[in-house]
Amino acid sequence: MERLGHDLTRFFSPKSIAIVGVSREASHLGGMSFLSYLLDSGFPGRLYPINLQAKEIGGLRAYPSLTSLPEVPELAIVCVPAPHVPSVLEECARNGLKHIHILTAGFKETGTEEGERLEEQVAAIARERGLLIMGPNCMGPYCPSSRLTAWGVIPGRAGHLGVISQSGGITQRLTEYTCFLGMGVDKAASIGNATVLDSADYLEFMAEDEGIRLIAMYLESVRDGKRLLHLVRDVNHQKPIILLKGGGTQAGASTVASHTGSMAGEQTLWEAFVRQTGVIQVLSMNEWVDAILAFYHLPGPTGKGVFLVGGGGGNSVLHADTCIREGLDVPSLSEASMERLQRIVPVAGSIAGNPLDLWMTFHDQACLAEVLEIAYGDPQIQIVIVDRLIPRKIYHMPDMPDSTATVIDFIRGNQHRKPTIFIVESEGGDPGLATKGSALRAQLCEAGIPAYPSVERAARALVHLHRYHTWCATEDLI
Amino acid sequence: MERLGHDLTRFFSPKSIAIVGVSREASHLGGMSFLSYLLDSGFPGRLYPINLQAKEIGGLRAYPSLTSLPEVPELAIVCVPAPHVPSVLEECARNGLKHIHILTAGFKETGTEEGERLEEQVAAIARERGLLIMGPNCMGPYCPSSRLTAWGVIPGRAGHLGVISQSGGITQRLTEYTCFLGMGVDKAASIGNATVLDSADYLEFMAEDEGIRLIAMYLESVRDGKRLLHLVRDVNHQKPIILLKGGGTQAGASTVASHTGSMAGEQTLWEAFVRQTGVIQVLSMNEWVDAILAFYHLPGPTGKGVFLVGGGGGNSVLHADTCIREGLDVPSLSEASMERLQRIVPVAGSIAGNPLDLWMTFHDQACLAEVLEIAYGDPQIQIVIVDRLIPRKIYHMPDMPDSTATVIDFIRGNQHRKPTIFIVESEGGDPGLATKGSALRAQLCEAGIPAYPSVERAARALVHLHRYHTWCATEDLI
Repeated sequence: MERLGHDLTRFFSPKSIAIVGVSREASHLGGMSFLSYLLDSGFPGRLYPINLQAKEIGGLRAYPSLTSLPEVPELAIVCVPAPHVPSVLEECARNGLKHIHILTAGFKETGTEEGERLEEQVAAIARERGLLIMGPNCMGPYCPSSRLTAWGVIPGRAGHLGVISQSGGITQRLTEYTCFLGMGVDKAASIGNATVLDSADYLEFMAEDEGIRLIAMYLESVRDGKRLLHLVRDVNHQKPIILLKGGGTQAGASTVASHTGSMAGEQTLWEAFVRQTGVIQVLSMNEWVDAILAFYHLPGPTGKGVFLVGGGGGNSVLHADTCIREGLDVPSLSEASMERLQRIVPVAGSIAGNPLDLWMTFHDQACLAEVLEIAYGDPQIQIVIVDRLIPRKIYHMPDMPDSTATVIDFIRGNQHRKPTIFIVESEGGDPGLATKGSALRAQLCEAGIPAYPSVERAARALVHLHRYHTWCATEDLI
Repeated sequence: MERLGHDLTRFFSPKSIAIVGVSREASHLGGMSFLSYLLDSGFPGRLYPINLQAKEIGGLRAYPSLTSLPEVPELAIVCVPAPHVPSVLEECARNGLKHIHILTAGFKETGTEEGERLEEQVAAIARERGLLIMGPNCMGPYCPSSRLTAWGVIPGRAGHLGVISQSGGITQRLTEYTCFLGMGVDKAASIGNATVLDSADYLEFMAEDEGIRLIAMYLESVRDGKRLLHLVRDVNHQKPIILLKGGGTQAGASTVASHTGSMAGEQTLWEAFVRQTGVIQVLSMNEWVDAILAFYHLPGPTGKGVFLVGGGGGNSVLHADTCIREGLDVPSLSEASMERLQRIVPVAGSIAGNPLDLWMTFHDQACLAEVLEIAYGDPQIQIVIVDRLIPRKIYHMPDMPDSTATVIDFIRGNQHRKPTIFIVESEGGDPGLATKGSALRAQLCEAGIPAYPSVERAARALVHLHRYHTWCATEDLI
């Protein structure tokens, strides 16, 4: 089957959509929820609910069939029960409607003969009639700039992230997560069982899409491993690909079979895939978002020497341990830096060095700037981590003027010198602090300064960033 | 030096305290902050601020010296600058005051000759005059039941956790963290440079203390490794010891030298220590609190077979992968269980099995109870993890009645059958959800049901719990 270079644009910016199988009842899934979310998000195109009986749904005129519509819509969202899907596909084909998203579940993933048969039928119709099908068993396309955000945050935030994912829930969460952290999505595709269009098709499309600068993938399976391998390896040079692979263990893999009806594949094969493509592999939702955050905003560091700024002796010890364990370096500063530091750090109760234990940096922005100036000028240092908020109820200083805006300005003016990120620990079981920490984290991220909830998570993201740029540099030499 | 069996009770429940070196200026550290926090926490004993000039401090009569006090106080908190500490110690000895906490920093940890000399002097005076000294360079004792909570949450929460730590900041955070998560501290000791009384002395004391049922330690160094090894191995059988060791890397170790003036020790020796003692070793603050939470509330599981209840296919795949990677099992359910499950789980859009993907469990407490009943009765399952809140703005259901109280009642009535814990993911960059998630987590923990912010962290805590109980059982056979 020829699949190179499918134009998938219409999936993401259709001028008109037919939603086939909209019941009049609201529910959290199904056609009616898609319709109402599209209305909520202010989708500017024409919407056609299809329902055999209804005259009107959600304030819109309803139609009994695709054939009865006043135009051929550019996209169909199919929500009818699985056994009716083949006849809807035939109707699409008859009407010249090529781009189809099948929301419906109940195919191969059920493990039943009937489900298997229906999925084969979908594939056969698509092949014979030249249909481009996203799904089945998925949430479909998402594109904030088209206000096509029927799932996910509404209206969503446009940006330069591309997402390809075999889980609607995980994609939904990722779009929400990135939006709250100040990043935007160009296009996301929840591709479910990927019966017709496979991850490689979407990747090929996104590789050419100028609006997309990095790509997040959640995969459970792949049909043509060799094709994906070559593609990922090529694309990864231009646009970092951050891959979350589900089903890496036996229990996970058997769940994959029930989720998207596919084989998760041998773990050893996946490991070879990661090695050969240089893809950035992450193991959890949080690690995924953490890495995306680093790649979204930061230039590649020229080394892995980290300068740690914070307060607290034990804290400094543990932060240094963690950075090293995760794969970064925490080098000694140059003599010149140490001389400058020792002039501002008190002998007792603080520690001049790397890590720097200096409480003053929490509330005195001039002191923080002075310290960072030293780090930016030190040849041992290529990355800076600033620990910003230690969750101690007793040390809250509500009377202190908030210096965050000044600090943000300073960092923004200097981040081209060395990538600088923040740690905002708002764990600690105190709901008030959780709120405050989450808001501060969002404020920093909005300003393009990655902020992480722990040093572990920050360090891991930075290791991914450093490894990727090292891989690119090595590959370029070959 | 004979140190076996020191009675350290007076450190934690003194009837009277002299604070030596209280300036009249408020600051976040120092004698004045201790005094005002003791007043805030309602410390019921007598407080004597010592200051050469002042007649009154913080509404209390001030005295020029220890000798001028109307009684011999049971505890002294020494806050004078380091060079004056030796003479204060001599004055304590002359007045028969044996229990002394030295807050002051500026000793060996500074790396200066002067600091080194002063620390040796402290050790010599203690030896000659039989003084029991906590510190120097530390926050000292903490005991909510005595309202001795000059640092940490005020008034603090009493419970059955003991804490021994070489970092005031980390101990402070731990007491706050545990308090907000519904646990209580019996006694905590921030022991700093541990010049006179060493971690082993506090451990020996806490081992005999009936109020303490588990012990958290943060160590950077140890003086008598052999003594500590034997002690930890013995105590660990009766009271689980959860150890966070700082300075496990070279960068961490060199910070240890500047923090508590000590040698972090060879990493290989520490590894042998962990192996030989069966101590529960954790690598970060969060992992520490997570493990404490599990040990605080849960009985030992009889195996590591986990049943995962949640919603979302991709989510289920990743949760299973994570549990396995962390060292748990996610076994298939028995045939009988599967038959019962299949009766309540729809074929399309959900997954009957382990993990169980069933959205209904989020909002229908009867459904959740039915599902848990199946897991409690299944011989393959020894632990249950319930995923409670997926942070999706779009799926918030504000109109749903809150079933948390009913769910808590059900779990409390059944937790003796199989340890059951929750995951409340409130990450996602949405400050509103962070607040809500943090509050829900606290509510569950308050009820004695451990709740974790991610499946990774839950799984790791459960692995510690399972390993410890396996270790105890194996040791008992020898």
